[in-house]
Amino acid sequence: MTAIVLVEPTLPENVGAAARALANFGLTDLRLVAPAFEHGADHPRALAAAAHGDAVLRAARTYPTLAAALADRRRVWATTARVPELPLPAVGPRALGAALRAAEAEGAAPAVVFGPERTGLRHADIALADAIATVPTDPACPSLNLGVAVALVAWERAAAAGEPPSTGPLPASREAFEGWFAAFAEAIERAGYLTDPTLRVRALRNLRGAFARAGLTEAELHTLRGVVGALGRRRE
Amino acid sequence: MTAIVLVEPTLPENVGAAARALANFGLTDLRLVAPAFEHGADHPRALAAAAHGDAVLRAARTYPTLAAALADRRRVWATTARVPELPLPAVGPRALGAALRAAEAEGAAPAVVFGPERTGLRHADIALADAIATVPTDPACPSLNLGVAVALVAWERAAAAGEPPSTGPLPASREAFEGWFAAFAEAIERAGYLTDPTLRVRALRNLRGAFARAGLTEAELHTLRGVVGALGRRRE
Repeated sequence: MTAIVLVEPTLPENVGAAARALANFGLTDLRLVAPAFEHGADHPRALAAAAHGDAVLRAARTYPTLAAALADRRRVWATTARVPELPLPAVGPRALGAALRAAEAEGAAPAVVFGPERTGLRHADIALADAIATVPTDPACPSLNLGVAVALVAWERAAAAGEPPSTGPLPASREAFEGWFAAFAEAIERAGYLTDPTLRVRALRNLRGAFARAGLTEAELHTLRGVVGALGRRRE
Repeated sequence: MTAIVLVEPTLPENVGAAARALANFGLTDLRLVAPAFEHGADHPRALAAAAHGDAVLRAARTYPTLAAALADRRRVWATTARVPELPLPAVGPRALGAALRAAEAEGAAPAVVFGPERTGLRHADIALADAIATVPTDPACPSLNLGVAVALVAWERAAAAGEPPSTGPLPASREAFEGWFAAFAEAIERAGYLTDPTLRVRALRNLRGAFARAGLTEAELHTLRGVVGALGRRRE
């Protein structure tokens, strides 16, 4: 399973937010390197921000150095906004999500490392990684909140397994739709809507397009049949 | 351009975090419906959380009702964890990102609506949308932080335009690599490494695989040539 490593985080809220994001997306292994606040993962503001991710936060381990936090890892990505002058491959979040899944599948115990909020990872820490991961952001506002950055990586790893298909109401069969539309056309013809046949044909074609686009269900056709019937009776 | 609408947000920090996420990913149109705190977008804790997204936050408009906030929009997605009993299509974040881009391209002024932190969108608010968007999360910890949820949607919209290609150091030409490896093999043979020819061939094959996997650059080959030369001289 992928480990998320936070190097010298300065705000307990962000550590809590990171724990929550791990829990949201099925990760459990959070590691802290020399946090810059007391009580580490037990800080009350961290616990408050973790919400239902508090179990991940309480299970987080603290290490004195990044090297110690990475000791059991086999593939390591360092996140950074500025790609440094190092001979390392660099990937975006989507490619990272797929690579984390692949590394987990081969048993390679991957880790993604995040730096302190204000400064990001130091050059010496990035040099401990095999590769760099960067989230492309607007140059006018490039810096991501730490909890958001962790959430994006956790989300992309989860999404790499495939997003559930889009769903929606099941449109009626063409037979049911055409049957209803013929009855509708007959009703409005009977009601005297547009006596000019050319105009009426054009209007019906436009109405047909609008109803077709809606992908009406059988139940909706049934309702509309009742509505049109009621309107017709009222007029008579 | 896509508008992000926050209905009755309760924590100024989350509104600030949302503004920052918009700015991170090239969005500018943030709308608040009846925020549950005073000073709206000017709340000091919102401004602190917005960081360099403060311009987006200051430009946010406040509306009394969701209907008012959506008046100029043409396609509207409501975000919700539980897909409600409504005849609306439902999409995941990736499909939503692509749909927002498509809606922007057709000039359809899209909006994505987010509910209050604790309760999510009310049924009556969801009913104002054309479609539902849901982020698939772990059932054990399904609820996303509001700022994170906004960031995921903004990120997916940005990423739908395509992620920059992965990059890395350019491997040397095969000719340069083979030339170097032949010299390396000769040097270690001269040094008397493994006198048994069968074992030496096998060891060289394994070393060759390791060096090939690294995708060594021309500069790295040059360095390695120097290293091997120095080691050879030292031994002699």
